[in-house]
Amino acid sequence: MVNIAVLGYGTVGSGVVEVVNTNGARINQRIGDELKIKYVLDLKDFPGDPVQDMIVHDFDTILSDEDIKIVVEVMGGIEPAYTFVKKCLLAGKSVATSNKALVAKHGAELLSIAKENNINFLFEASVGGGIPIIRPLNSSLTADEIEEITGILNGTTNYMLSKMFYEGADYDTVLKEAQANGYAERNPEADVEGYDACRKIAILSSLISGQQVDFEDIYCEGITEITVEDMKYAKAMGTTIKLLASSKRHGGNRLHAIVAPCMLYPEHPLYNVNGVFNSIFVHGNVLGDAMFYGSGAGKLPTASAVVADVVDAAKHLNRNIMTMWKQEKLKLEDKADAKRRFFIRFKGNEDEMLPRLQDSFGDIEIIKAEGLLGEFGIVTPVMMEGDYVTRANIYREQILHMIRVEG
Amino acid sequence: MVNIAVLGYGTVGSGVVEVVNTNGARINQRIGDELKIKYVLDLKDFPGDPVQDMIVHDFDTILSDEDIKIVVEVMGGIEPAYTFVKKCLLAGKSVATSNKALVAKHGAELLSIAKENNINFLFEASVGGGIPIIRPLNSSLTADEIEEITGILNGTTNYMLSKMFYEGADYDTVLKEAQANGYAERNPEADVEGYDACRKIAILSSLISGQQVDFEDIYCEGITEITVEDMKYAKAMGTTIKLLASSKRHGGNRLHAIVAPCMLYPEHPLYNVNGVFNSIFVHGNVLGDAMFYGSGAGKLPTASAVVADVVDAAKHLNRNIMTMWKQEKLKLEDKADAKRRFFIRFKGNEDEMLPRLQDSFGDIEIIKAEGLLGEFGIVTPVMMEGDYVTRANIYREQILHMIRVEG
Repeated sequence: MVNIAVLGYGTVGSGVVEVVNTNGARINQRIGDELKIKYVLDLKDFPGDPVQDMIVHDFDTILSDEDIKIVVEVMGGIEPAYTFVKKCLLAGKSVATSNKALVAKHGAELLSIAKENNINFLFEASVGGGIPIIRPLNSSLTADEIEEITGILNGTTNYMLSKMFYEGADYDTVLKEAQANGYAERNPEADVEGYDACRKIAILSSLISGQQVDFEDIYCEGITEITVEDMKYAKAMGTTIKLLASSKRHGGNRLHAIVAPCMLYPEHPLYNVNGVFNSIFVHGNVLGDAMFYGSGAGKLPTASAVVADVVDAAKHLNRNIMTMWKQEKLKLEDKADAKRRFFIRFKGNEDEMLPRLQDSFGDIEIIKAEGLLGEFGIVTPVMMEGDYVTRANIYREQILHMIRVEG
Repeated sequence: MVNIAVLGYGTVGSGVVEVVNTNGARINQRIGDELKIKYVLDLKDFPGDPVQDMIVHDFDTILSDEDIKIVVEVMGGIEPAYTFVKKCLLAGKSVATSNKALVAKHGAELLSIAKENNINFLFEASVGGGIPIIRPLNSSLTADEIEEITGILNGTTNYMLSKMFYEGADYDTVLKEAQANGYAERNPEADVEGYDACRKIAILSSLISGQQVDFEDIYCEGITEITVEDMKYAKAMGTTIKLLASSKRHGGNRLHAIVAPCMLYPEHPLYNVNGVFNSIFVHGNVLGDAMFYGSGAGKLPTASAVVADVVDAAKHLNRNIMTMWKQEKLKLEDKADAKRRFFIRFKGNEDEMLPRLQDSFGDIEIIKAEGLLGEFGIVTPVMMEGDYVTRANIYREQILHMIRVEG
C-alpha cells in the first residue's frame, strides 16, 4: 500500500481524486502496489463528498504520519505551499506539484532537498498541463543539446488570440467571452500580461540549462496591446499572432529568453495551435525539430500529469531521479543582442516615408492592410533588437505598434 | 566509466558514434559518469574512420567482455540481431535498439529476460525515430487509460502522399522522386505496403494493452492504390489522405488496430503533418488529446533516441525499468466490428444510382470532383465495416475505390 495525501481540494485536487478513483486499477498495476489517498488537506469540510472522511484541516497530521510517502501539492501560490512542500521533503516524503509559481521560484532548492533525502520532487503538471514535457526533457532528450524551446504555454491567451484572428473580434470582447466561458479569471492579469507563460518558460529554461533562470529576468510582454488592426496586418502578411514563450541558446550555456506576442508563418509548427490548447516546440542539435501538443490546463488533464508523477514517485520510493537544475543563477543574454525581424506599424503615408525608412532599416517590406487608411506596416530585415530600438527611436512619434516576427 | 558496444556501423550506428562524439560532455553530465564506445561490431573495416580502432568482427569479443554494460543494436532485421540481443541480455548487458522488426516480434520476451536479469531492454528509436513516444507512454501517461493511439508512422509514404495532395502528382512519379531523394528504398514495399507502419503500431498497441499484439494480426493496407483521382475527391471534401496506423480501445482491453490510408478533415490533429515528418496522436481517458511530432527517421534523430536510451540504461544499471508487455497474446477486435464512415467511388451516373445507394447505405453525401466524368463519390454515414462490406458487395462491379474516413 502506498499512502498519499493531497494538499488542497480545489479544481486540480478534486481532479486528482477523480483520476485515482477512475483509473485506480490500471494505476496500481503500473505501480505494482495499491495507491491510497489517505488525507485531503483543506480549510473546508466537504460533507457528502467522497473525500469527506479523508479531509483534515491540520497539515501536521499529514507531516507526522509516517505512512504518507507521497504528498500532492495542488494549492497554488508560494505560501503556505513552499513551507509545506519543504517540510514534506525534509521529512522524507516525495512531492508532486502542479504549482508553477512554486517551481519557478524554489524548484532548484526543493530538487536539491529531495536529492539529499533520496526521494523526489516532481512537477510535470507545472508546465503544459497534461502535456508530457518535463519528463521528456529530463529523461528522453538526454542525447541532445537543446538549442531552442518555444511554446504556446497559456491557453487563455491562445484562446483569445485565436478568436481575434479567426473571427476578427477585438481584445475586450474576447476577454469578456473568455471570462464568461471560465477560460479567463476575473482578474486576468497573470494570463494576459504573460506572467503565467513567463513562469513556465523560466522553468523550462532552468531545465535545459541546468541552472536557475529567474522569471523576473525574462523580458515579458503580454497581449493587451494586440488590436483588430494588428490582426489585419498579420493576415495581409499570411501570418498569425501567438503569445510565444521562448528560450534560445546563443552559444555555450547562454540563453535568450522572452515572452511576447509574435507573428508566425504557416510553416511554423506552432501556427496551427488554436483555442485553449498548448504546444511546445523543441529543437535539439541532433534530434532536430520535435513538438508536444495537448491540453495545457483543465482539471483532468492537469490531474493526469500530477497522478503520473505520483506513479513515478511510487516507483522510485527512496531513489532520487536526477534532475539537472542547480541553484546557481544563469545570466541571460541581453534582449538587445537577439536577432530577428520586426513588424512595425507607422502613422503616415508609405510613399513619402519609404526612402527615409529604407535608409534607417535597410531592405524593408511594405505591408498594407485592407481598410486601414493613414497608416501602413513594414517588416524589417533580420536585425539585433538593440539596433531596432535605436532606429525606431527616431520614429517614436509615428510608430503605432511593433510586433516581433518569428522565423 | 560506462563502456558500450555498437552492433552495426550503418546509418544509425555511425549516427550513434557521431552523437556521442558531438554531445559527449553533456551526456556524461547527465549520466554522472563517462560514456565510452569501446567496440563497434561490423563485417567491414573502416580504415581512416574515427572508429577504426574500435571495430571488431567477432560478436563474442563483446559478449565476453565484462566491461561492456550496455549494447546498442542497430543492425536491423531479425537475425542475427535477435540472437545477439538475447545473448547480451542473458549476460547481464542492457540493450538499446532501433530495430522495430525485432521489437515487434520479440519485444515481450526480451523485456522479460531484461527484467529477470535486473537490466533493461530499451527501444525508443523503434517507433517515431527521434520522437519521444515509448518512454512517455511508459512513464508519463501512467495515470490514463489510453483509448486511442493513431500515428503517421512512416515518413516515406507521408512524403509521397503530401506531394500527391499538394502538387497533384501521381503515385509512380512521387515514388521515383522519393527514391531519387533517398526517402524511399529501391524496393519500397515495406514502406508503401504499410508493413513498416504496421510493425510500429503493433509495438504501440502492445504497450498500451500490456499484451502481445502481433503485426500479422493487424489489417494492413498501403498507399499503392491511391490515385490522382482519389486526391481530387479528397480536396472536394476538404480532406487530405494520410496513411494512418491506429489502435483504438473498444471497451475493456480490446483493441481495434488497423493500418490504412484515411481521409482526414482539417480539424484532425494529424491533418497538417506533412513531408517526411511523423506524428503520433494519443487520447487518454483523463488526459484528453495529446500529440507528439518530429523526425520519424534519419541518421541523427534516430541516433538521438538510441543514445537517450543508452543514457537511461546507464542511469539504471542493475535496476529494471518496468514495462508492461506480457507475452500473452491480445485478441484484436474484428475489423468488421469497427465503426466509421466510408468514402466510395462509383462508376456511373449519380442521379440514376442515388435512390438505390440511399436504400443500401442510408443518408449518404454525394461528392463530385472537378474534371472526373462518368464517376462520382459518396460518403456513407457511420457504419460497421462488416455492414459496409455486405452492402458494397452488391455494387462490386461499379465500385472503383473505397477509402476510410477518419473522424
